[in-house]
Amino acid sequence: MNNSAFSQSLLDKLGPEAVITTPADIAPWLSDFRGMYKGQAQAVVRPNTTDDVATCIALCADARVPVVPRGGNTGLCGGATPDTRSDNVILSLDRMHAIRSIDTIGNTLVAEAGCILGNLRRAAADVHRLLPLSLAAEDSCQLGGNLSTNAGGVNVVRYGMTRELVLGLEAVLPNGEIFHGLHTLRKDNTGYDLKQLLIGAEGTLGVITAAALRLYSRNDVRVIVLAAVDSPQQALHLFELLFERSGPRMQAFEFFTAECVDMVLAQTDGLRQPFADRHPGYVLIELADTVDEASLRTLVETVIGEALERELCADAAVSESIAQVNSMWRLREEISEAQRADGPHLKHDVSLPIASIPAFMASVGERIVKQQEGIRQIVFGHFGDGNLHYNLSRPLGAPRDFFAEHGARLTAEVLDEVMRYGGSISAEHGIGQLKREYFSRYKDPLDIRLMREIRKCFDPHGIMNPGKIF
Amino acid sequence: MNNSAFSQSLLDKLGPEAVITTPADIAPWLSDFRGMYKGQAQAVVRPNTTDDVATCIALCADARVPVVPRGGNTGLCGGATPDTRSDNVILSLDRMHAIRSIDTIGNTLVAEAGCILGNLRRAAADVHRLLPLSLAAEDSCQLGGNLSTNAGGVNVVRYGMTRELVLGLEAVLPNGEIFHGLHTLRKDNTGYDLKQLLIGAEGTLGVITAAALRLYSRNDVRVIVLAAVDSPQQALHLFELLFERSGPRMQAFEFFTAECVDMVLAQTDGLRQPFADRHPGYVLIELADTVDEASLRTLVETVIGEALERELCADAAVSESIAQVNSMWRLREEISEAQRADGPHLKHDVSLPIASIPAFMASVGERIVKQQEGIRQIVFGHFGDGNLHYNLSRPLGAPRDFFAEHGARLTAEVLDEVMRYGGSISAEHGIGQLKREYFSRYKDPLDIRLMREIRKCFDPHGIMNPGKIF
Repeated sequence: MNNSAFSQSLLDKLGPEAVITTPADIAPWLSDFRGMYKGQAQAVVRPNTTDDVATCIALCADARVPVVPRGGNTGLCGGATPDTRSDNVILSLDRMHAIRSIDTIGNTLVAEAGCILGNLRRAAADVHRLLPLSLAAEDSCQLGGNLSTNAGGVNVVRYGMTRELVLGLEAVLPNGEIFHGLHTLRKDNTGYDLKQLLIGAEGTLGVITAAALRLYSRNDVRVIVLAAVDSPQQALHLFELLFERSGPRMQAFEFFTAECVDMVLAQTDGLRQPFADRHPGYVLIELADTVDEASLRTLVETVIGEALERELCADAAVSESIAQVNSMWRLREEISEAQRADGPHLKHDVSLPIASIPAFMASVGERIVKQQEGIRQIVFGHFGDGNLHYNLSRPLGAPRDFFAEHGARLTAEVLDEVMRYGGSISAEHGIGQLKREYFSRYKDPLDIRLMREIRKCFDPHGIMNPGKIF
Repeated sequence: MNNSAFSQSLLDKLGPEAVITTPADIAPWLSDFRGMYKGQAQAVVRPNTTDDVATCIALCADARVPVVPRGGNTGLCGGATPDTRSDNVILSLDRMHAIRSIDTIGNTLVAEAGCILGNLRRAAADVHRLLPLSLAAEDSCQLGGNLSTNAGGVNVVRYGMTRELVLGLEAVLPNGEIFHGLHTLRKDNTGYDLKQLLIGAEGTLGVITAAALRLYSRNDVRVIVLAAVDSPQQALHLFELLFERSGPRMQAFEFFTAECVDMVLAQTDGLRQPFADRHPGYVLIELADTVDEASLRTLVETVIGEALERELCADAAVSESIAQVNSMWRLREEISEAQRADGPHLKHDVSLPIASIPAFMASVGERIVKQQEGIRQIVFGHFGDGNLHYNLSRPLGAPRDFFAEHGARLTAEVLDEVMRYGGSISAEHGIGQLKREYFSRYKDPLDIRLMREIRKCFDPHGIMNPGKIF
């Protein structure tokens, strides 16, 4: 069937509200938000029911037409951008944004995949519950994308990745069948846990249409500590102390270097050096609890007092107001934007066994500098999860296309070192198109073989998001 | 190859310390601890390295000999008991009981599958950490069995199932290849999360040889509440209040009926009615924290005071001493043993959406009584996870073999009702042999088909724990 006949069959079955076929209207759907990838498609389909998703995929399966699922288009690896085949169908679930139920006894939220994450967080808060998944893009990313990339974010140290929040899934498989796994059960040991395959599969095993998520108690009492550290090693010991003493209250433990702060201050108005002295590194710790601000504050002040006395940090400030909480967080949150404003750069989203972060940072730093003098290492991340955004900005004065020539070589330096320390080349961003080559280079061949076989089980004709991951 | 030639090849490759072939020595390995199932085997293999496990399985794969993995033999569904084929090889990892590492910065414990769970808990406690998996059999069950059945236990309401504790796995696949997934990373989004398939697979996809587990902060401060409730509905509202107020401190929320207490008091010395009046139901709540007993106690007393005032419970006692903690827990923990002492009975380990427990209990109770007057319903469980042990004891005066005639019919009543409420027929015990028939009756055919295909990918010759799950 040619493209126009196939597009017509989509229109016939799903109606004009659900199918876009005009090239001008398709155009905005063809690239990722950073503009790194651009592909082609014959149609964009925007169904508003699970049955219509199934109808669309069944048609595509019959005609062997590739399906490229797309969420809020906030991904960093091109996982939701079509390749250059002209017959691609982009499948967006943005019209499926119903919250099907919220249960404050079972503490579950059942929502459709097109829901904006921030809306779900607010819906939970409205009934005095917490949906703990929180990330920079939360007001534009969609739940389906969060699930398909197993999104991380700032509270993983306490609540785990997206995977840990999922109790059940509804999905359409690559042959158009509906997987009815939308349970809200906390315990269900009846065979293999199939939903786990769909989480983090980047749309290669089917399209998630809805999920049942765990909710937690709301933590309205919150205290932030900003601490200065002389070294990553010192940050480790501070982490250890906080973990022991504050137990489950610690919900973020972020790290960034002096170079990150310099870049933020250079690119952002209204912020200033956090301490009188400039320190090699900084740690931002967020603690939160359901009740009793005074006890939380006493606990934090006692622990930080001990940390200063035992020289587990060089300086520290405890937030006294919401304004302080916000300005402390801004120092951390503005890093990505400041680096973008500074110009082209290279992102590495890696993870490591936490205890090996200092040795890793020392050795990779040495390798990078040996390769390229003057390169600026902008290192920050979710230290408490072992997750570093080990980013590089070009040497001052280097041309804007610096990384076109040097990027691959520098990335190899970083990732080789990650593997030497038993780390992961993609902590929370996934593989998509961007890291496909690295995936095949670094992942155990046995794992890749098993993944290929599983993918073939689910999708014998290879129509689901072809070219992504592997 | 006949059995004796094959057993000889195992002996030749693995040595006499690792291979048992004498029928008298094999005999104790052929049944489950309750004596419900009994099978046959030509040999028991007890390797002490992962390479030897791989050698054993590769030999079995080549000769198409079935492999039956066995942990501490504490399972309740016959999942580790061989069938009646004479060529079965039982594979026990009890000699692989090394703790490979404990890391108090990354908060991970890497241990071999033959480790006794209780020993791992003590090893974690020794370095001021908590391994939160806790269950009645913890001093005899093995980690490999816990992983393969995705064990639950009493602290799931706070820490999740075994699955939630696993960061990495090492396993031998059904062709003898070693799966090297023993990472300690908190974040790793590089393709499908293959280890999730092995967790809860009851040894059908390979043999887990070691795991990397999450550790938590130690909660040395602990307060128990025993509350009397007029109905399961009241227990629900009490749960809701505790969840909101105590946040992550609540680590157990157990429920049992007056009939459970009667049975415990009839069969056990040294315990007495917990309150002056007999109440229809009881709830045992455990709260724990890292620090500050006084604050935890104040919090609990305030919340329980409010619960009494709002009539969310009929009576309540807060533990004042370790002795009280222990005697409160004993009331709950002795139920299984009391029911065993009372005579033959029928176990149902089911789960439900938490909010539907009261309606479920009312309707299934009515069905059961209609089917069989005088039947004793011994209902208890991990209410905060929606997990009920909906057990039945025979009518007073009924013959010991009562359930041989009536068991299947009564089980069908319970499980039909579980499905009607969107529950699970096996919350935490798994399927094994015991629930195979119910699995095929109640599980979605699409799920079963996908599981069959995945099993075939991993184990094309069907040698791993045949006859288990499906």
